Formats: sequence, C-alpha cells, structure tokens
Amino acid sequence: MKLYDYLPSGNSYKVRLLLSYLALEYDWVNLDIIAGETHTADYKSRNPVGQIPLLELSDGRTIAESNAILYFLAEGTPYWPSNVFDQAKCLQWMFFEQYKHEPSIAVARFIRTYYPQDRADELPALMSKGVQALDIMEAHLADNQWFVGGGPTIADIALYAYTHVAGEGGFTLSDYPNITIWLDRFSDHPRHIRITDIPS
Amino acid sequence: MKLYDYLPSGNSYKVRLLLSYLALEYDWVNLDIIAGETHTADYKSRNPVGQIPLLELSDGRTIAESNAILYFLAEGTPYWPSNVFDQAKCLQWMFFEQYKHEPSIAVARFIRTYYPQDRADELPALMSKGVQALDIMEAHLADNQWFVGGGPTIADIALYAYTHVAGEGGFTLSDYPNITIWLDRFSDHPRHIRITDIPS
Ligand SMILES: N[C@@H](CCC(=O)N[C@@H](CS)C(=O)NCC(=O)O)C(=O)O
Ligand SMILES: N[C@@H](CCC(=O)N[C@@H](CS)C(=O)NCC(=O)O)C(=O)O
Repeated sequence: MKLYDYLPSGNSYKVRLLLSYLALEYDWVNLDIIAGETHTADYKSRNPVGQIPLLELSDGRTIAESNAILYFLAEGTPYWPSNVFDQAKCLQWMFFEQYKHEPSIAVARFIRTYYPQDRADELPALMSKGVQALDIMEAHLADNQWFVGGGPTIADIALYAYTHVAGEGGFTLSDYPNITIWLDRFSDHPRHIRITDIPS
Repeated sequence: MKLYDYLPSGNSYKVRLLLSYLALEYDWVNLDIIAGETHTADYKSRNPVGQIPLLELSDGRTIAESNAILYFLAEGTPYWPSNVFDQAKCLQWMFFEQYKHEPSIAVARFIRTYYPQDRADELPALMSKGVQALDIMEAHLADNQWFVGGGPTIADIALYAYTHVAGEGGFTLSDYPNITIWLDRFSDHPRHIRITDIPS
C-alpha cells in the first residue's frame, strides 16, 4: 500500500492516523503541493483531481478523497460502527467536515500559512463559517464523548485533523471547552501520532 | 419516515430519487429556505446546521447530509455496491460531489436564480471550478457507463442531481457528450422522477 501525501495536510493526516491505529505498513510518498507536484501528468493519471491524499493498493488501484480512504481502511474494524444508523451518522459528520468545516478552517489555516497578505480579504467569511462549524461540534460534545457511539470512529478522525490545528487558522480553541476535552481524549489513543511525525 | 425538503434543491432531490427507486412511502415537508424556514429554533433542534434535506425516522431519530441519507437508504440494495473497494469508490465520488461539484455548480445555479446582480462577482471563480468538476466527470464517462460498477449507484444519484440542471448555473452541457449520454441513461430508470415533481 502506498500513500501519496503532504506532511502538513490535515486531509492526509487523517489517513496516517488510521493507518497507525490499525498498525498497517505502507510506503510514504511526500509531494510538495505548493510546488505543484500533484499537477504533473504522471500524478494526474493516478488522481485526475490533482490532489493528495491518494491511496494506491498493491494491484495499482487507487482511492482518492481522505474520507473515502478512511472508510476503505476502517470497514470491518471498530472505527466503523456496526449498525447502519450509526454508520450513516458517521458519514453525516464526515460530509459535514468536507462541506462546512474543512472549506473554512483548513482554508483559513492554509491562507494564514502561505498567503497571509495576498488572500487576507477571504479570511472574514472563512472565520465566520468556521466558527459556525466549531459551534455545532461544541454543542454536540456537550452531551457526547465521541461523535458517534461510545468510542472513536472515522468521524472523530476526520474532524480531529483540522480542529486540533484550528489555532493556526486564527480560531481560538480555548473558547470551546467541550472541543478541548475531546481533543485531549482523542490524542490519548495509545497509537496516536502527531501531524508533524514523519512516517517511518 | 419524514423528509424535510425544498423542492428546487438538488441535495433533496437526490433523496427523493432514491426513495422513488426503492418505492418507499414517506411524509413530505416542504420548507421555504429563502424565507429562512430552516433557521427556526424548532427546526434547528432537528438539524443544528439549519439546512435541508433531513430524514426523520418514525422513532424521531434524524439523519442530515444528503449523501449520508443516500447511504442509509441504499445500504443492502443494488444502489450500494457489495464489495468494499467499490463502496469506497462510491464514497470517493460522493465526497468529490460535495467538495468540488456542488459548491461550484449548485452555488452558481443558486446565485443566477436568486441573486443574479448582488452576487455576480462570485460567478467567475465558481464557473472555473465547476468546469473542472465537469471535465473530470466527462473523462471518467469516456470509459465507463456509470460512476462505479455496472449499474447506477448512489454515486450516480449524487452527481446527477446538480449536473442535470447545470445549465441553470450557466454551464454548457452540450460541451460534454459523455455526460449528456450518461444523463439520458440515468433518466431512463423506470422509477425516474423529475426535480419539479411534487411527492404525492
Ligand atoms: N476533498 C479532498 C481534499 C484534498 C485536498 O484539498 N488536498 C490538498 C491538500 S490538503 C491538495 O492536494 N492541494 C493541492 C492542489 O489542489 O493543487 C480530500 O478530502 O481528500
Ligand atoms: N451538505 C449538505 C448541503 C445542504 C444544503 O446546502 N442545503 C441547502 C439547500 S440545497 C439549504 O438548506 N439552505 C438553507 C440555508 O442554508 O439556510 C447536504 O448535502 O445535504
């Protein structure tokens, strides 16, 4: 199994986290997305969207989209619930992550890291959308330890990736006590890794 | 089962299509999203995100996010593939839909319908992102009749919803011969309904 990746990417970090939880071995290919390394003809023959993460199986078949890769790896493990309602709730949070959370919180972090001046005018709208996403998570976590069921699932992994670095996007995590406790609970996993840990 | 809906919404139309395919009976609640009917305290107690579609089960439990609802209804039917790789590919296209396709093509349609003057400055970026999404679909459909496997799945349903009305967003579907043939193939389903058909 081979993971095409970019170390600071939260979308890729989701996959690295789950691979670590499951103690799976994989080859790691780090591409510099800022230098355009996902837009070569060779890479686009693997993923026409020109993005990481991408999982390549030993037979050459590929899966794109971080949350689809999470499903592929988690199916049949405790990280994917066993009843269809909880499975649908898992997907509900994962689609929420890709529709409301990542496009605001991850993009604000990206702009503040790479284009703090050039794209500053995009930040106010992103901050307001990101706060809405964090408010919804905070309210859910008032009554629940995890997003779905009694332990971590791929919904938690998907939401952890960019929430734990939301500070780099300009969000104030200390305003969210339930999220803060959930982040700690999540990172207590015995096979936790950090977003900066280079896969060996 | 109750579906909270807004008739012109492609996200809700996905759910209506699958409910029709599966010949399932349901109560239909049409909310005027333009008048803010999804932002009442009562509705937000059902879906904190304040959006349709929302599926409410007879025991009161709810599922939000169109594509999570599709999964819930399709699991165990031919519209969800039976092997895990094809399932992951289904999700890959559904996450692509929510990340690249809907945020450009559906939003361009929304702006041209409701705020053609006020939000005209957003259109150029949306059109260019939408064309990229259509190009990726067109290329896939050069070698494939359906998005995954040998028949329609919830990946096709998710992508059909806003593609077939992309013209209302200012996109030129006749530039995409493979997409055009796929749209026809899709609407040949014996239980097809149109986005304008009011559920009975
Ligand atoms: N929806 C995709 C998003 C992937 C994505 O945004 N990848 C970014 C890095 S986090 C990328 O590859 N950017 C390079 C580019 O778009 O050129 C997923 O969840 O995997
Ligand atoms: N990601 C959601 C998007 C749902 C969505 O955008 N719903 C729109 C109508 S298509 C809505 O309810 N808008 C009302 C509002 O946001 O106030 C899904 O796939 O269900």
